[in-house]
Amino acid sequence: MTSGFVSLVGAGPGDPSLLTRRAVVRLRRADLVLYDALVSDEVLAIARRAHRFYVGKRAGRHALTQEAINALLIRAARRGRRVVRLKAGDPFVLGRGGEEALALKAAGVAYEVVPGVTTAVAAPALAGIPVTHRGLSTGFVVVSGHDEQAYGPVLGSLPPRAATVVVMMGLARRAAIAELLLARGWSGSTPAAVLYAAGTPQAHTWIGDLSGIGLHQPPPGDLPATIVIGDVVTLAAEIGRVAAPADAAQAQRAVQQR
Amino acid sequence: MTSGFVSLVGAGPGDPSLLTRRAVVRLRRADLVLYDALVSDEVLAIARRAHRFYVGKRAGRHALTQEAINALLIRAARRGRRVVRLKAGDPFVLGRGGEEALALKAAGVAYEVVPGVTTAVAAPALAGIPVTHRGLSTGFVVVSGHDEQAYGPVLGSLPPRAATVVVMMGLARRAAIAELLLARGWSGSTPAAVLYAAGTPQAHTWIGDLSGIGLHQPPPGDLPATIVIGDVVTLAAEIGRVAAPADAAQAQRAVQQR
Repeated sequence: MTSGFVSLVGAGPGDPSLLTRRAVVRLRRADLVLYDALVSDEVLAIARRAHRFYVGKRAGRHALTQEAINALLIRAARRGRRVVRLKAGDPFVLGRGGEEALALKAAGVAYEVVPGVTTAVAAPALAGIPVTHRGLSTGFVVVSGHDEQAYGPVLGSLPPRAATVVVMMGLARRAAIAELLLARGWSGSTPAAVLYAAGTPQAHTWIGDLSGIGLHQPPPGDLPATIVIGDVVTLAAEIGRVAAPADAAQAQRAVQQR
Repeated sequence: MTSGFVSLVGAGPGDPSLLTRRAVVRLRRADLVLYDALVSDEVLAIARRAHRFYVGKRAGRHALTQEAINALLIRAARRGRRVVRLKAGDPFVLGRGGEEALALKAAGVAYEVVPGVTTAVAAPALAGIPVTHRGLSTGFVVVSGHDEQAYGPVLGSLPPRAATVVVMMGLARRAAIAELLLARGWSGSTPAAVLYAAGTPQAHTWIGDLSGIGLHQPPPGDLPATIVIGDVVTLAAEIGRVAAPADAAQAQRAVQQR
């Protein structure tokens, strides 16, 4: 009996050159790819021989429920397919990869996890912002900005400047997130950035401060956004503006609106 | 005039299949590679035509000062060399990549940053521990365990179970770190793991709890370690024990000492 196999694969922040080698091998050999909204066309194109199926959820719109995705993965593997479940960033950073792993395990389906470059670190990095930097930050916090229950306990207790704050999927609640930190004693002048569509040709950066983030108007297009708050944001102006050869160029349009 | 170029490259957690494609391209073309202690021989072997030079620091032993590394990078680039500065994990996660970027910028040397798979997320993932998981954790904290100033402000204020805690380079101070969380109200029965040499053939995992971490005796060999604290550690037993085909096998010897 041929037995199928599922790879839970992190696609990284969007740029196909930031895929891991193992991700590329799995995509090339895949019979079926189930992918999310933030996975780029260039990345998908690597899976030449696969059926590609969109199962994304984005800003409240669900193409498929998690249960339906789990069932699809299990059914395809049982038919002997090599399946890639492709997720933006890393499968275990706010990606529900753990739930899929547990479902596959319970169904007796063989699987693996292929870590990816997480957007939580790479989105800032591609904009010239190191999440840690000697003298500025010795750690960072990554939270979902989806609802107050998710980020409240961490951000509501975090002392000013104790760590760099990275908020994923928090654009809609940016004002409430800033209020929470201000109430905890953070200064309104703490540098802050919103990184849109990191690792894609649409990438651009808003730079301001904690007091300005609530008033900031996102650009049109419903772009994915990563919020970064902390002194390390000041490094963007220095590290970000790099003269690089063509093959190294990061498509980064810096919108400095401070 | 030929101008050199420096790539600050994340090597990922050690397994060469978790290098990014861009990292591989840069290594293949490199004239000079400056690498750290935790970069594996298999990863270095990709840089076939390069001079490879160890500049690592590990547990207090410095092969070269940061200033000397910066000076080497600048000198080699000015001689027209393609230089790769290769760091374990991601260059901007406790890797001093920001300092090197600033030094290169100040010297007028062209450079780029190539994000890598960070060990902070991948070490847990490879042991079957997702840093976030619905119902258990909606965020995570990454801190350096090198000294109390680095981790104290964050961990001393973090409410019990508010986020998964990941401590890098914290093995020597594991007892003090556990004490800090216990003093903050965390339960001694909070699951905890120490992940040794993640992504390498020497990888193995200790699993216990917060009250046991101080008494845990590390194995011989001065292996790099990542500490993870939080309910997500309970998933290791389920997600970690995966029957995978040979090409997907993770060399993970789970030492369950709970």
